[in-house]
Amino acid sequence: MKPEMFVLDVDGVLTTGQFLYSKNGKEFKVFGPDDNDGLSLLKPFLKIHFVTQDKKGFAISKKRIVTDMKYPLNLVKTLDRVEWMKKDTSLKKIIYMGDSIFDHLIFSKVGYSIAPANADPSAKKNADFVTKRNSGERAVAEACIHILKKFFNINDVTTLKKINL
Amino acid sequence: MKPEMFVLDVDGVLTTGQFLYSKNGKEFKVFGPDDNDGLSLLKPFLKIHFVTQDKKGFAISKKRIVTDMKYPLNLVKTLDRVEWMKKDTSLKKIIYMGDSIFDHLIFSKVGYSIAPANADPSAKKNADFVTKRNSGERAVAEACIHILKKFFNINDVTTLKKINL
Amino acid sequence: MKPEMFVLDVDGVLTTGQFLYSKNGKEFKVFGPDDNDGLSLLKPFLKIHFVTQDKKGFAISKKRIVTDMKYPLNLVKTLDRVEWMKKDTSLKKIIYMGDSIFDHLIFSKVGYSIAPANADPSAKKNADFVTKRNSGERAVAEACIHILKKFFNINDVTTLKKINL
Amino acid sequence: MKPEMFVLDVDGVLTTGQFLYSKNGKEFKVFGPDDNDGLSLLKPFLKIHFVTQDKKGFAISKKRIVTDMKYPLNLVKTLDRVEWMKKDTSLKKIIYMGDSIFDHLIFSKVGYSIAPANADPSAKKNADFVTKRNSGERAVAEACIHILKKFFNINDVTTLKKINL
Repeated sequence: MKPEMFVLDVDGVLTTGQFLYSKNGKEFKVFGPDDNDGLSLLKPFLKIHFVTQDKKGFAISKKRIVTDMKYPLNLVKTLDRVEWMKKDTSLKKIIYMGDSIFDHLIFSKVGYSIAPANADPSAKKNADFVTKRNSGERAVAEACIHILKKFFNINDVTTLKKINL
Repeated sequence: MKPEMFVLDVDGVLTTGQFLYSKNGKEFKVFGPDDNDGLSLLKPFLKIHFVTQDKKGFAISKKRIVTDMKYPLNLVKTLDRVEWMKKDTSLKKIIYMGDSIFDHLIFSKVGYSIAPANADPSAKKNADFVTKRNSGERAVAEACIHILKKFFNINDVTTLKKINL
Repeated sequence: MKPEMFVLDVDGVLTTGQFLYSKNGKEFKVFGPDDNDGLSLLKPFLKIHFVTQDKKGFAISKKRIVTDMKYPLNLVKTLDRVEWMKKDTSLKKIIYMGDSIFDHLIFSKVGYSIAPANADPSAKKNADFVTKRNSGERAVAEACIHILKKFFNINDVTTLKKINL
Repeated sequence: MKPEMFVLDVDGVLTTGQFLYSKNGKEFKVFGPDDNDGLSLLKPFLKIHFVTQDKKGFAISKKRIVTDMKYPLNLVKTLDRVEWMKKDTSLKKIIYMGDSIFDHLIFSKVGYSIAPANADPSAKKNADFVTKRNSGERAVAEACIHILKKFFNINDVTTLKKINL
C-alpha cells in the first residue's frame, strides 16, 4: 500500500533539537542543509505535514516551516498525535518521523516510522528506519530519499522530472 | 532509602555548557530536547531544584528554569553546595547531577550522583551513574528515566498515570 | 593542466551548513576558523569564486564573503552551475567544492572536485578529494592546502613568500 | 626551569573556533564551561595573556576576556607572535596554546606548547601536549590542570589553598 502522508515532528527532526535562550526566552532554533530540498523532491508524491508540541518556540517553527518552506504545521501534543492523524488519513498510510522519548508510542500505530540517528534510544529501537545522519545534518533529506526509493521505486532522485529546488 | 530531592547544576547539565558572547556580553545558552519532559515525569516523586554559580548568565538560566519550566533555581558556588543542600535535606536523600571539575567533591557527599557523558573526566570517574547522552542532547531526560527505574521501580515511563507533558 | 578557478558552494562548505532561525526568519550562519587564511594562501594561484542558492540567507553570506573576505559571490542554483561556470572558464580548469545532494552532478563535469567530511554521502562518493575536516571546522583550509600541494607543488605552505594573513 | 607565562590564542582555543554571522557581520563567538575556573586555579603560578589576530571579532573577545575574565588581550598576528612574546619574557619560559595552521611555527620556539584536540593536524603533530577535550569543551581547563601537575607538582587541584572560583 502506498503511503499518502508524511508527518514530521519539528524539534530534533528538522532542527538539531537545540534552542537558544536569552534572558527574554527562547529565541533561536538550529536548522540544517538539504532537508528543504529533500522535501521538495518528495512533495509530488505525498502530503507533507509538520507537528510540534513546542508552544514557546511555535513562532520560530512557523516562520521556518509555514512562511518560508510552505508546509502546514500544527500544535499537537505527542500523546494526542495518533488521534489527530486518524481524522485525516488511515494510520497505515502515514509515515511518521520523530525523535523523542514518547514517539515510539506513535511508531507502533502508523504504517512506517523513521527516527534520526541522534533520536532517543527508545525511538531508534522502535523505528522502521533510522537515518545515518543526525537531525539538522540532513536526516530529513535522507528520509525523503529513502521514502522515494522504498515506496515509489525512485532509485536516482536526479532523474526526477521537473526538479525545481 | 528513597531519595527526596534531585539537585541539578545548570551549565553543562541542562545546557550544552556553551554560551554565546557578543560585544555586549553573555547573551545565549543552548538547551536541548526532552529534558523538560523527563523532569515532568519525575516531578511527582521528588523535589527538583537547580543550582548555578553563573552570575553573568543568571538571567538567562532563570528565564528558562524558573519562568518557563517552573523549577526553583539558586545561585550557589560549587564549593558551597554541600553546606547549602544540608540545610534543606539529609545529604543521603539527595541525588545530585553535575559536570564540572569540582563536582566530584559534591558527589562523594550525597546519596547518589549523576554526570552527563560529556562531563569533566573527574566527574565521570566519581559519579554513580554516567548518562550515555551529552548535556543538551537528552542527558537530563535520561537521568530522570534512570531515577524512576532505579529508585521508584518504574520500568516503563509510558505507563505513568496522568502524563501531561 | 593547471586549474584556473576554485568555485566553492557556501552553506555546508564555508559554514557548518546550519542556520539559526528566530521568529523573524533566518538570522545567523556559523563559520569556522582558518578557512579565510587558507584561501589567502591560495589566492595568488587561482581565481576564487563562491556560489550559493540560498536567497533568504544571501545577505548573511554576502556580508561574510564579499564585504569581509573580499571574494565574489553569485546566486546560482545547484543545477544551473555547470552552465554558469562554462561561460567563464573551461570546466576542466575548474576545481569545485560542494556538499549537497546534487553536487555530484557538478563533480562529474569539472576538472577536480572536493567535498568536506560531513557532506552528503553522494557528494563524498563522487568527489576526487574528501577533506578530513567537517565544514566550519577547517574543511576549506584543508582543501586549500591540498590544492597548493597537488597542483602547485607547494608542500610546506609556511615557505610561501609574502604570507600576509 | 619553571614557566613564567601562559600565552593563549583565543579563537579555537578558548572558543569552539566558530563564529556566528548575521547580515550585519560577526556577532557571536561560542565559549565553553570550566575554562575560566581552570585559569583561576593557574593564575597564582603564572602570568596569563591572550593573543588574537581577529580584528572583526575583537570587541567580542575583549568583552569576554578583558572585561569579564580580567586577563590581558592583545591583537597580534600569528606570524608576529614570537617577536612580540620575546620582548616580555624569555621564550623558553613561555607556554603557548594554539590551534591554527601556522601555530606550529610558534610551538617550535617556545618552552612548551599545547594544542586542543580539535586543532589543525599540523598543530597537534608539533605540540608538546594535546588535550583530550576540544576547544570550547574544557580544553583550556584541561591544559591548566596539566600545567599545574607538570610544572608545579600539584596533582590534586582540589587541595589548592584559597580556591575562590
